[in-house]
Amino acid sequence: MKTGLIIGLIVLAISGTFAQKPTPPNIVVFLVDDMGWQDTSVPFWKQVTELNRRYRTPNMERLAREGLKFTNAYAMPVCTPTRTSLLSGVNAAHSRITHWTSPNKDKNTDYPDTTLNPVDWNYNGLSPVAGIEHTFHATPLPTLLSQNGYYTIHTGKAHFGSAGTPGSDPKNLGFQVNIAGSEIGHPASYLGTDNYDRPGNGKPNRNAVPGLEAYHGKDVFLSEALTREAIKAVEVPIQKKQPFFLYFGHYAVHTPIMADKRFIDKYLKAGLDSTEAKYASLVEGMDKSLGDLLNFLDERKLTDNTVVIFMSDNGGLSTTPLRGGQEHTHNLPLRAGKGSVYEGGIREPMLVRWPGVVKPGGVSEQYIIVEDFFPTILDIAGVKKPKVVQPIDGKSFLPLLKNPAVNDTTRALVWHHPNRWIPAEGPMLHWASGIRQGDWKLVYDHRTAALELYNLKSDIGEQQNLATAHPDKVKQLALLLTKQLKTWNAQMPTFKKTGKAVAWPEEVIP
Amino acid sequence: MKTGLIIGLIVLAISGTFAQKPTPPNIVVFLVDDMGWQDTSVPFWKQVTELNRRYRTPNMERLAREGLKFTNAYAMPVCTPTRTSLLSGVNAAHSRITHWTSPNKDKNTDYPDTTLNPVDWNYNGLSPVAGIEHTFHATPLPTLLSQNGYYTIHTGKAHFGSAGTPGSDPKNLGFQVNIAGSEIGHPASYLGTDNYDRPGNGKPNRNAVPGLEAYHGKDVFLSEALTREAIKAVEVPIQKKQPFFLYFGHYAVHTPIMADKRFIDKYLKAGLDSTEAKYASLVEGMDKSLGDLLNFLDERKLTDNTVVIFMSDNGGLSTTPLRGGQEHTHNLPLRAGKGSVYEGGIREPMLVRWPGVVKPGGVSEQYIIVEDFFPTILDIAGVKKPKVVQPIDGKSFLPLLKNPAVNDTTRALVWHHPNRWIPAEGPMLHWASGIRQGDWKLVYDHRTAALELYNLKSDIGEQQNLATAHPDKVKQLALLLTKQLKTWNAQMPTFKKTGKAVAWPEEVIP
Repeated sequence: MKTGLIIGLIVLAISGTFAQKPTPPNIVVFLVDDMGWQDTSVPFWKQVTELNRRYRTPNMERLAREGLKFTNAYAMPVCTPTRTSLLSGVNAAHSRITHWTSPNKDKNTDYPDTTLNPVDWNYNGLSPVAGIEHTFHATPLPTLLSQNGYYTIHTGKAHFGSAGTPGSDPKNLGFQVNIAGSEIGHPASYLGTDNYDRPGNGKPNRNAVPGLEAYHGKDVFLSEALTREAIKAVEVPIQKKQPFFLYFGHYAVHTPIMADKRFIDKYLKAGLDSTEAKYASLVEGMDKSLGDLLNFLDERKLTDNTVVIFMSDNGGLSTTPLRGGQEHTHNLPLRAGKGSVYEGGIREPMLVRWPGVVKPGGVSEQYIIVEDFFPTILDIAGVKKPKVVQPIDGKSFLPLLKNPAVNDTTRALVWHHPNRWIPAEGPMLHWASGIRQGDWKLVYDHRTAALELYNLKSDIGEQQNLATAHPDKVKQLALLLTKQLKTWNAQMPTFKKTGKAVAWPEEVIP
Repeated sequence: MKTGLIIGLIVLAISGTFAQKPTPPNIVVFLVDDMGWQDTSVPFWKQVTELNRRYRTPNMERLAREGLKFTNAYAMPVCTPTRTSLLSGVNAAHSRITHWTSPNKDKNTDYPDTTLNPVDWNYNGLSPVAGIEHTFHATPLPTLLSQNGYYTIHTGKAHFGSAGTPGSDPKNLGFQVNIAGSEIGHPASYLGTDNYDRPGNGKPNRNAVPGLEAYHGKDVFLSEALTREAIKAVEVPIQKKQPFFLYFGHYAVHTPIMADKRFIDKYLKAGLDSTEAKYASLVEGMDKSLGDLLNFLDERKLTDNTVVIFMSDNGGLSTTPLRGGQEHTHNLPLRAGKGSVYEGGIREPMLVRWPGVVKPGGVSEQYIIVEDFFPTILDIAGVKKPKVVQPIDGKSFLPLLKNPAVNDTTRALVWHHPNRWIPAEGPMLHWASGIRQGDWKLVYDHRTAALELYNLKSDIGEQQNLATAHPDKVKQLALLLTKQLKTWNAQMPTFKKTGKAVAWPEEVIP
């Protein structure tokens, strides 16, 4: 009986401590690759679209029901800048990681252009240490979380920096565990029977997915293998009663667009284009992973103390023949897709669930941007005044989580992509900048020095250029964009013919 | 002057000899894999179909203009039986090579069925020597041509027999040269940059295409590499002034359906399903190869003395998700596709050009079948009474080449497929037999013992089963089919439940 009493007292004492200093919540960032704003059965627009009806994402629907939907969440037009902004809190124009990093070190991935010279951007990506050439040095989010008691797990696609630099390995960026992440930006194959590899010329593919040997030769789709491993990894902090940060970066739904056999039949039967059917199966396989994770949290009674943030890293790919159907229609009603500073390239499906803090079924129309994740997640974790080497551009959206009605139309968001992405031309796919303030958006084409103005409230598809009708708005936004880019010491490409730099937006105000 | 006179006399003498004993013509068999009856801009039906408008095959158009079009040419429902019938002159029911042979020896490729036991067919394929288990022993066509002065070249897909048996190597079948042929039935990859291979689990794919090392690592599509090598190989008999037999078995357009980059753009721009666009590019790449070969014959002034026979080995694949679009619509107006004894599985695009013998632009509606190639080609080559170990079922169509109006409605063609092809069920894809006489066709479903009767003249799509309306015709054809199958000692599967064999068609006449 004495022992019982003592144990009882200890339990009371512990409970007391917890009451005063609550355990910080677990945090899951569920980041999908190349998923567009409409690639889901959750409607992010004011109406349910044909694309919403096409895709089947019941677990995203669950997350939307139980959490908060952000209808104006933004990322960068391509993947590395989004990922490094998320981990650093710094805008891509500012970090100079404006484009996707090659798996190989010291390789500028800009496709050669006949008009402009590439800028000397940080094409080796993010670095947790100073002095690495062509990298941006920052104190990464996982490092800070790890220092503050979190067990930090990286799963899936990393793509933060090139091989041979510290940033290529998630374990150098503050992750205590790394599952299948490296310098690669997409998998060579989604198939376990391929060993997640597709060798060419007798050599392993540079995009072979590392570290999933247990699934080699088995009929386990990559999305599934990652999910099983992530759940296994989370068991460790659960046992240790330590809060965890799970960064789950799916390789899906990036190319190669391969069928996830578990889900493809219904899309084929629906008569979908065959590549689009495969794509839809990739989306549903990713959603199944989300569901497995949510179910796991339920089973382990962790749901109430876990924040789940769902996000994608850029707009849906909309070039053919990689996608099926007509090019640049894959993010409708949004214009264009991955690579573009039009909405199709940057607007993302975003959901946040946090029981007890975020009211279920809410919607926030406030625009936010991916560098906001850094200060927000630190806020959620209760990390005050973190010691970081970089200047933070992001703004915490924790207030929005608590009150989705908050509406700030004065803030300006900036995109800057002084790079050429692919051989093909397309709607603002290369060499462009953009700024949004309130409902207004200015887009700047570097090669033609053209400024386009759109009102996103009345024209989400960016079809009506209002630059001529609203010269004052053009001027105001061009000045604001220029000021911000100059403040960040952003890079502008130079013309091949003259050697002169592309003009700042303010210099070309009509 | 004296020398000149002597040379003149020699020339005269040689010419004289030729006049008495003409050089036999060169013979090209251009055999495409899995190409359907409608996968071409050449209309083989009475009207131009949507599929004819989709595909671009200008060189087949040329061949049709300059030669004879067979609108009722038949092969077997799957590839090996067609190929071994062509090389042996024996019907598949008779040779007992009724299904596709595995690259691996002693492997029955029948997919397991819940109702029927597989038959003990010759699943190691064709053999040029006696005593090899599960093979059909025959004297192959190339052996006979080689013995009769032909230089015999094999290019591309062989698939005559399993590895470890003599029939797997075209050089054992009378071919003096073999380019890229082996026991495999399709390429692991069409890409030179893949080395025509797609290793899995760290091992080379069993379907890696052999012998094209010169193109490894190069951006040369398989159809192109084969064409270049075939043309190079033909130089040898040209130099030797020896007639040649070129058997050019394209791997195209079999799966994996990969884009031939040279041709895909227009199909994508036309808004075609993405897999179907790739398929169309495979078709056009194959047609380009035909054009290159025809141009080469022109350049070397060989056109007039070369017979070119164009054929496919079975109907177009019509199952999804391997094909795009709705399943079983890929050979319309014909019913079903590869694997089936309905017309979509067996009717083939066939063209024959032979300047001076075949009148340009002709059409023959006479039905012929692939075992006819054997006696026909021997006739063309002037080989009389060849010594062969096998009984010949085929009938020479040389008279048809000379007079396409010949019309024989008494002959009966037989298909026999006592095998299960794939996991999926589909229109007569498994366990079926068929017979055609005149315009009538009887189809026999082994599992249900159902007899279906169609009139192909009025109903090419086999939509109206006339069995009830024409019991006498059913009876006559069922008796004829049974007689022929029994004559050939054809195999019938047995029921798992009872151990009893499937009834002969004559036993189930209603």
